[in-house]
Amino acid sequence: MSKNAIQDWDLVLDAPNQFFDGYKTVDGQNLMLAFSNDRIAYFGPRYSLEDFPQEQIIDCRGKIVTPGLIDCHTHTIFGGNRADEFSLRAAGASYEELLAQGGGIHNTVECTRSASFDELFHDAGKRLATMARFGVTTVEIKTGYGLDLKNELKMLRVLESLSTKQPLTCIGTCLAAHVLPKEYAKNRSGYLDLIVNEIMPRFAESEVVSFVDVFVENNAFDLNDARRLFERAKALKLEVKMHAEQLSRLGSIPLAVEYDAASVDHLEYITSEDISLLEASNTVAVLLPSCNLYLKQSKRAPARQLLEARCSVALSTDCNPGSSMVENVLVAMSLGMMTLGMTSEEVWKSVTSQAAKALRLTDRGRLSAGLRADVVIFDCPTT
Amino acid sequence: MSKNAIQDWDLVLDAPNQFFDGYKTVDGQNLMLAFSNDRIAYFGPRYSLEDFPQEQIIDCRGKIVTPGLIDCHTHTIFGGNRADEFSLRAAGASYEELLAQGGGIHNTVECTRSASFDELFHDAGKRLATMARFGVTTVEIKTGYGLDLKNELKMLRVLESLSTKQPLTCIGTCLAAHVLPKEYAKNRSGYLDLIVNEIMPRFAESEVVSFVDVFVENNAFDLNDARRLFERAKALKLEVKMHAEQLSRLGSIPLAVEYDAASVDHLEYITSEDISLLEASNTVAVLLPSCNLYLKQSKRAPARQLLEARCSVALSTDCNPGSSMVENVLVAMSLGMMTLGMTSEEVWKSVTSQAAKALRLTDRGRLSAGLRADVVIFDCPTT
Repeated sequence: MSKNAIQDWDLVLDAPNQFFDGYKTVDGQNLMLAFSNDRIAYFGPRYSLEDFPQEQIIDCRGKIVTPGLIDCHTHTIFGGNRADEFSLRAAGASYEELLAQGGGIHNTVECTRSASFDELFHDAGKRLATMARFGVTTVEIKTGYGLDLKNELKMLRVLESLSTKQPLTCIGTCLAAHVLPKEYAKNRSGYLDLIVNEIMPRFAESEVVSFVDVFVENNAFDLNDARRLFERAKALKLEVKMHAEQLSRLGSIPLAVEYDAASVDHLEYITSEDISLLEASNTVAVLLPSCNLYLKQSKRAPARQLLEARCSVALSTDCNPGSSMVENVLVAMSLGMMTLGMTSEEVWKSVTSQAAKALRLTDRGRLSAGLRADVVIFDCPTT
Repeated sequence: MSKNAIQDWDLVLDAPNQFFDGYKTVDGQNLMLAFSNDRIAYFGPRYSLEDFPQEQIIDCRGKIVTPGLIDCHTHTIFGGNRADEFSLRAAGASYEELLAQGGGIHNTVECTRSASFDELFHDAGKRLATMARFGVTTVEIKTGYGLDLKNELKMLRVLESLSTKQPLTCIGTCLAAHVLPKEYAKNRSGYLDLIVNEIMPRFAESEVVSFVDVFVENNAFDLNDARRLFERAKALKLEVKMHAEQLSRLGSIPLAVEYDAASVDHLEYITSEDISLLEASNTVAVLLPSCNLYLKQSKRAPARQLLEARCSVALSTDCNPGSSMVENVLVAMSLGMMTLGMTSEEVWKSVTSQAAKALRLTDRGRLSAGLRADVVIFDCPTT
């Protein structure tokens, strides 16, 4: 390392107790991480920095440095709350019952439609600020509580504003195919027409939108619907994702892999055949363990089988008002260990390098020269 | 209300969306809460405050005001951490296995004995600051990681310092009878002699200590031991508590009620007869649902039966490094609803009026004139 290269550094994180580099933990006491022009410039053995401005060195002794955490599956923008349904479910009502009775997602759709842009922006901004406090720097946010052109676009405008007016990176996903809105209850093909002809093209024009997602489930959308949406997405040069195999088995993984989905999410009901397909694909398995708690679902996604088959596994909060009102990705990580049998290293990987892969982001999620200067210092001794 | 009385007020919380008064939620938009000389001076309909100093009025519109939350069962002072055991347990090891192999509580005892006063004080202070951020103003803290005179007294000195040097109220509990320390593995009566003859009298002299607690369990202490400790506690004018019926059934509730225990804690294995005894007693059932998650214990405390029998039920984090590394009492409340079937009002009550009762505190936990000015404003719309 030449003196000139070191002089270009803007900031150095020096000698933490531990680094997690996106794949594994390494003893950090003899290492340093340096940034230059908003990029990682160096990650390796410590250099003597006697001539370097001392105010540009952060002494990280006793701490952990990781890539900025990535929450890769959230519904952070929504109106109202579902505290009343949380109480009903605590008393025994099921999520599916409430949805079938016109509550659940429909409840939030009503509140989101009647909320103003400012209300949605303010509330989502507060949630992002909370996420940031736990170490998150990148958040995927889905629409899907508008369910008509006007309100899906209102959510998109909120997403775009959040993307520019607060520090976290927001990655947008069109989830107009969340559930069938009540006004289309008897006209499924009419709603799909609306999505592919009017909603998706508008989303494709937005710089903040990368993905089209679909909730494949009884009471939501089927595999034919998903195929139609994915075809249109590809034509519009959007990548795809799928809410898959959460509450029942519908055999949706082959379709998702056929369309090179960036991720398939939930996965409580996947089989060994599905796992083989995922292993051979570029599709990440996104697991959302807090939903199991919220929905009192005893069936778990087969995390160990996925990991042992060398599939890519990410964890996320699924932050949403109905089935996972969780803003703290560390909770998803704890539950990954407590309820899915994942190891400490696997859960850190699941919210860094693997979550980046679930969002098809190659510029973050690892500590590697040339990537974004996007890291977190945790004030705790070990991962 | 005379003008003079109003002039004595130091501060007014005006018109929140909702008050939770320690027992129930009430619409707050036409109510106010006023303080005078560190006490609640008034809680009732709004008065016109035109002549009142406007800087002493907090506009609480859209928010919730509750009594300061009380975390009534914690082990907040400890050395080291048990991240390694958390990983072992995620991979399948049981809590009892680790304890029997000399890990578990013994692991933390070793770290606590080798930690300095300053280290323990610094780490516990950080944990209390975290608790405060979630609305807690009173915390019970147990010793029990020293397990000899010198180190139990070191923990006690940390407790006393925390009590005076940070804003939360700390209520101290002697838990020298946590497990049998290794050096007394073959001399149980010798360790009990040490507790009753040397440790407890020193604790009884401390203003911060209110309780003596005992872990009644296989691998810990039995009912004869508990009786001996409780007898001594009464003689020393200390109240008692019991870790009871958590991992197996030992029939300990009658003894706890006989000694008018302030609380019995955990209770996964209690029976209908135990519930009848508790209903007729002044003893609070303290439930710790995050332990079930941490220990992967499917058996749950019968919260609904306790509540329907009109027992007093409190919830708490059980903050400790081995079986519940949770500093956020709101997590215990969420789990109370999600895993124990409690209602929203029941969980708020469980960390205010009922948690106060579990600590035999009559000056807090409710919004009532004459009680401590000890309340929290939550920036959220409803409970």
